Amino acid sequence: MGHVGCGLIQLIERQAELRLPGHLIITGITARSRDCDRVCDMSSYQWFDTPQALAASEEIDVFVELIGGTTGASREAVNLALSAGKPVVTANKALIAEQGAELAELAEKNGVDLLFEAAVAGGVPIVRALRDSFSGVIVNRVSGILNGTCNFLTTEMLSTCRSYEAVLQEAQALGYAEADPTLDVSGMDAAHKAAILSSIAFSADIDFEKVSVSGVEQITLVDLKFADRLGYSIKLIAEGVLRGDSVVCRVEPKALPLEHPFASVNGSLNAVRVDGEALGAVTFTGPGAGAGPTASAVMGDIAKLFRPSVRSPFGRTDDHPLRHFVQGQDTENSPWFVRGYLADKPGALAALSDALARANVSIDKLLQDSAASDGASPFAICTHVCTSAQMHKAVHYMESLSTIIGVPRFIRIETDL
Amino acid sequence: MGHVGCGLIQLIERQAELRLPGHLIITGITARSRDCDRVCDMSSYQWFDTPQALAASEEIDVFVELIGGTTGASREAVNLALSAGKPVVTANKALIAEQGAELAELAEKNGVDLLFEAAVAGGVPIVRALRDSFSGVIVNRVSGILNGTCNFLTTEMLSTCRSYEAVLQEAQALGYAEADPTLDVSGMDAAHKAAILSSIAFSADIDFEKVSVSGVEQITLVDLKFADRLGYSIKLIAEGVLRGDSVVCRVEPKALPLEHPFASVNGSLNAVRVDGEALGAVTFTGPGAGAGPTASAVMGDIAKLFRPSVRSPFGRTDDHPLRHFVQGQDTENSPWFVRGYLADKPGALAALSDALARANVSIDKLLQDSAASDGASPFAICTHVCTSAQMHKAVHYMESLSTIIGVPRFIRIETDL
Repeated sequence: MGHVGCGLIQLIERQAELRLPGHLIITGITARSRDCDRVCDMSSYQWFDTPQALAASEEIDVFVELIGGTTGASREAVNLALSAGKPVVTANKALIAEQGAELAELAEKNGVDLLFEAAVAGGVPIVRALRDSFSGVIVNRVSGILNGTCNFLTTEMLSTCRSYEAVLQEAQALGYAEADPTLDVSGMDAAHKAAILSSIAFSADIDFEKVSVSGVEQITLVDLKFADRLGYSIKLIAEGVLRGDSVVCRVEPKALPLEHPFASVNGSLNAVRVDGEALGAVTFTGPGAGAGPTASAVMGDIAKLFRPSVRSPFGRTDDHPLRHFVQGQDTENSPWFVRGYLADKPGALAALSDALARANVSIDKLLQDSAASDGASPFAICTHVCTSAQMHKAVHYMESLSTIIGVPRFIRIETDL
Repeated sequence: MGHVGCGLIQLIERQAELRLPGHLIITGITARSRDCDRVCDMSSYQWFDTPQALAASEEIDVFVELIGGTTGASREAVNLALSAGKPVVTANKALIAEQGAELAELAEKNGVDLLFEAAVAGGVPIVRALRDSFSGVIVNRVSGILNGTCNFLTTEMLSTCRSYEAVLQEAQALGYAEADPTLDVSGMDAAHKAAILSSIAFSADIDFEKVSVSGVEQITLVDLKFADRLGYSIKLIAEGVLRGDSVVCRVEPKALPLEHPFASVNGSLNAVRVDGEALGAVTFTGPGAGAGPTASAVMGDIAKLFRPSVRSPFGRTDDHPLRHFVQGQDTENSPWFVRGYLADKPGALAALSDALARANVSIDKLLQDSAASDGASPFAICTHVCTSAQMHKAVHYMESLSTIIGVPRFIRIETDL
């Protein structure tokens, strides 16, 4: 019942808007403290005093573990649930990385699912992709930026010219870094995730002791600046590589050429890349942490547990309101890119500007080159935001000008980044 | 038995190396021509004269349709298989986009899966991610670069300063574009894919008639160049957006600000982005076509059909050779980024270069700034490829120099792009 737990309850409370293949009921909840302030109202849910009691309850069909840690309550509760033949969904990367082999054995023995999409890269569905979608791929390598805190630190140091310590303090104040950031900055958290992905990708018994780990604590602003000037971006990279029949898994800062796809993955974003024979490289990018993305990943796992497992081809569910395709009305406001040719005559640009003004379309940027040998000067305009109707009117006015050659082309400018 | 069919047979023949949860047997095959030259040997597989005969055969458990087209054999065979209660796996985007609603109904009626991961974005597993992993997400928008041919054309025109016609001809010669490229360049192919994704994302009855489509045929080199000079990249963008209870789906060229994530998706790559409440934005990038990626996607779908549907947590299968984690030996050759401080004294740089030379490490790039007030000059070196042992030796030599201040830091340079 921390951030992710509350995020999950909020999602479950809105399940009518989701596309789940069935209906969820929250049988019970538990937390370290019953009374602390939370963003969700828990009063309507049955309270259990311990995770173990909840996991062992006969009333539950699925146990969701969002406690964290590798010992004590989380471990015991997961064990109890699996032993009782209840599927478990967890976001606990440390537990899966360090005790995944025995937990997997227990799950298999009891014929139930143990799902942990949320344990790696938050909202990015890389676990299921690797395990299921890519089960027909011979994977050679899986690599990524798997710790948002480290990536935030190195990105922010360089872009704001501040020291490691200064940016870490800010990240802690913003909640991007823990009060004790060791697990993140040491590379250990990324290592947990790399071990999980490697085990899946290479069908290898997970063995966290063998992962070599170094973090970003030693990286200075001068390192980042000099690397940048030489054409590199330093990022904490986690990877698993197949060497013969062995899996080498490691986390270390690497200098990436600026044209590397990961070099532009900035801030707290996560990215994962799968390199496979026949497949080539497929990259996933998205939010690696946070209540919403992590709870969404947990929901995706819970959805998998509904029976029967044959789903409607488009994922349609009976409960969900059916939407209909409608013809786009092209009424959206946006800025526009307009391109055409002007006759090389006095007043040509004035007439063009006037045509736009008459349609009440204002110019953001304009570029006109000198005329080619055919007397036509290419131009391009970026407008400020206007309606589609205004734009059509403007182009209509432009077409009627004797100083416009041919038909101007207009293309919508994307404003959603 | 075209490129994708042969790619699939080659994957199935190597299934011992894959991570499928069961064993596949090719019951039968069919093709328009039995005798044409193929990269795979079909002689050991039972031949059927028509797709319809194969689909109706009682010997099959799963029917894989890689024919294409929305009428005739492909449609009839898919109908026959579904009606006979056999799951169907297809890469046929036109069939699913234009007749998906009735095929889905038929599949549901017969309680079987109709899977089409390979129909959208080739090797990028976006269909299952949207349908299953994101079934707990309220999706607002799904958008992408879904036609590699169009993206290749616009990328190549700008980067090589050639006309649409010239680049199209080259693309045809290289096999990146069809002899009749209409389906691609008109935007129709991207529209098929956008309709499929929209139907899944928004739980909407697929209705291809409502999709508005424009292509890249009108885009000129001058358009691309002027857009670039004004800070935009023109790309063919396919998208589905939720407006109230309606779905607007369209394909059109858009001017993307150069900092937009899609602006740097170049060549024949595909990219898809899912924007969801709570989730944020998750982007998938990868090869959108080709025999290998498409066959890999088909295999992922086939893998889903094995029963029971509870899989081992890490996707372990009994058949597959189990790999082991080993400690990385740090023996890989690579170039290195080395950073440290030099004393501001004569001969300091000479001693540094000599230390590297003694370890047989050669310098690719070097950057040294003037000394700060503490008399320490920061420097950075990028080396050529050397062994890890050479690098350690070089750093050891450097540390022993009286003109080196502190301990130099060395970071591996990534060479795999």
